[in-house]
Amino acid sequence: MGKMYFSVSEYKERLAKTKESMEENNIEVLLITNPGNICYLTGYDAWSFYVHQMLIVSLDKKDPVWFGRGIDVDAVKFTTWLNDEDIIAYPDDYVQSDTKHPMDYMCKVLKDMKVDNKTIGMEFDSYYFTAQCYISLTKGLPNAEIKNGQGIVNWVKIIKSEKEIEYMRRAGIITAKAMQAGIDALAPGVRQSDVVADINYISTKGTKEFGGDYPGHPPLLPSGEQTSACHMTWTDDLLVQGEPSIIELGGCYRRYNVPMARTVSLGEPSDKLKKLSDVCVEGIDEALSVVKPGITSEDVEKAWRKSIEKHGFKKESRIGYSIGLNFPPSWGEETVSIRPGDKTILEENMTLHMIPGMWLDGVGMEISQSFVVTKHGFEELGDIPRKLFVK
Amino acid sequence: MGKMYFSVSEYKERLAKTKESMEENNIEVLLITNPGNICYLTGYDAWSFYVHQMLIVSLDKKDPVWFGRGIDVDAVKFTTWLNDEDIIAYPDDYVQSDTKHPMDYMCKVLKDMKVDNKTIGMEFDSYYFTAQCYISLTKGLPNAEIKNGQGIVNWVKIIKSEKEIEYMRRAGIITAKAMQAGIDALAPGVRQSDVVADINYISTKGTKEFGGDYPGHPPLLPSGEQTSACHMTWTDDLLVQGEPSIIELGGCYRRYNVPMARTVSLGEPSDKLKKLSDVCVEGIDEALSVVKPGITSEDVEKAWRKSIEKHGFKKESRIGYSIGLNFPPSWGEETVSIRPGDKTILEENMTLHMIPGMWLDGVGMEISQSFVVTKHGFEELGDIPRKLFVK
Repeated sequence: MGKMYFSVSEYKERLAKTKESMEENNIEVLLITNPGNICYLTGYDAWSFYVHQMLIVSLDKKDPVWFGRGIDVDAVKFTTWLNDEDIIAYPDDYVQSDTKHPMDYMCKVLKDMKVDNKTIGMEFDSYYFTAQCYISLTKGLPNAEIKNGQGIVNWVKIIKSEKEIEYMRRAGIITAKAMQAGIDALAPGVRQSDVVADINYISTKGTKEFGGDYPGHPPLLPSGEQTSACHMTWTDDLLVQGEPSIIELGGCYRRYNVPMARTVSLGEPSDKLKKLSDVCVEGIDEALSVVKPGITSEDVEKAWRKSIEKHGFKKESRIGYSIGLNFPPSWGEETVSIRPGDKTILEENMTLHMIPGMWLDGVGMEISQSFVVTKHGFEELGDIPRKLFVK
Repeated sequence: MGKMYFSVSEYKERLAKTKESMEENNIEVLLITNPGNICYLTGYDAWSFYVHQMLIVSLDKKDPVWFGRGIDVDAVKFTTWLNDEDIIAYPDDYVQSDTKHPMDYMCKVLKDMKVDNKTIGMEFDSYYFTAQCYISLTKGLPNAEIKNGQGIVNWVKIIKSEKEIEYMRRAGIITAKAMQAGIDALAPGVRQSDVVADINYISTKGTKEFGGDYPGHPPLLPSGEQTSACHMTWTDDLLVQGEPSIIELGGCYRRYNVPMARTVSLGEPSDKLKKLSDVCVEGIDEALSVVKPGITSEDVEKAWRKSIEKHGFKKESRIGYSIGLNFPPSWGEETVSIRPGDKTILEENMTLHMIPGMWLDGVGMEISQSFVVTKHGFEELGDIPRKLFVK
């Protein structure tokens, strides 16, 4: 038995809910690729998802089966509650080979488990479930009915337990400390990489009481005109007096992520940037003010939209998404999007990141807020004022 | 025109080689998903690969076409040499939607380019080329012949230019500094997260002359009995007097990665660990001593194998792989593996990571060496003694 972040009974409850959802979706066997989903059900926590691995959940079998590379078996034993006989390794010459694929071996495993004639769900759009996985499995399982099982576990994950919320509060504390370190470090003539070094130091160190984990992605730090581009990381270019920078970062505790974005102007900001920031902060406030159980995700976006339209602004892209347990390349959980058409009804203990970036010609800004949906409203995760910082 | 890390002529040379390889493989249009490959051909450098994006290279068209999310278009302009008319965005409601997929939109783009009836190669086993991408493209392109184009660009990347080698030397300098910081920080009673905080600080800060970038994956730091598991990251557990730890980390400069692993014993190491280390160091020395252009990759492994067999050891898993330009989840380039059966002939300016981890019951160790193949032998990347460190 490994050393997990949750009790075995919590993992088993998650598994039971996953099986319920499988039944509702007429899936008898689910092959899970998303590392966050594997971790959610078993505790598995290792950077081994750069080679193929999967968790097999079968309605016919009590416990899940981990399938992966031989040299990762010990990490399964150290971090999960799985039985030794439910840990199955493929030989190392299947790794990044031109002639054999781990999913060929997986087909044999499913035959041995006598489930190769079942309805088998797969996470069709999961990051590490490649086309080749699908091709090999489809070819090797002629008697199976193959179905899209994308999102099955993600939607089970969406309501957090008290312990998960506690982990996210801790992540939020790390987030705020790391953001403060970044804001403090920003100054004319300093390299972007030096600012991010301070952020990475703090987000890894965490607090005296608990250490930090690696977030779903590294900090983003566009400066100057590059603030109009929203996913640029950093370089060793120098920061320039009079220019704005956006810091977007995540604090992470035991794989639970809390992201945050803030914009900082080195010197007096332009009127355009001040205006954008005022509109954005007001829009977030108004959108947050409608958050409570029972309201839909698109209604939250509508409150934002109404707010910025008063000032003559429009925004095409979504303004937020569900967050929590994940591994790179994302801290999102790929369920709810805060946007028109998303009719998800918010429930207590959902966790989301509202990040309505605003971009105009040559300048952009981002101010964001992660939050938990509570009984009557919301609780903020990550305590840093929502404003344009001026240094 | 963006600000790239290489001259436009170097990117165009890479593109010409890619097109040559496409012709040899009877592929008329190549859809490139691997973020390292996209960066290699265009300079594109942003953390946007968590949503679907691709580069389209067509034999009929001089320049590549970037296809991705609207809010990432500016990052393309800032970091690549592509023409504005070759940057095509899909609408934001295609992002993580249940009802529409970016690859549906891609099919329209390929029709507009009048290449939907061509032989179209795709990177079947690339991390972010999901089953759903393949399914949507196959369905939406009934007149195309779809082929596996996995590895086309990876194999072009394998011989590095002088400038790439220079970047890797810089990455190696960062690697060594970060490793030294990790070794210095390891002490009984210190949290693993505090050690990694020091590592992340240095690997991001880099040197006075140049800053660091994020490596293909975060540091790994298993301690005690967990050294038998090779891809565990870190927790906030305390380090224990008398126990060994493995540090595996990458230094990165402008997306070029140089990894390194070292093992550190806090206090006198066990005889088993000392023996393992001696065998491993000797094995690496003997394997490196045969490295030169003209020798095969499997011959390098054979020298290792012969060396450790003298001492009664065996190892099943591969002992190394090609490295260089990549994004998470990997710093490998997924071409050469140093293992039996790999008949790749080493050539000048290939870059590899030799990492023959050794694991016995309850204890493991890793000592590794990144290197460039030179005219008559090899050049080490990352200067830290190859030995078991004892503190």
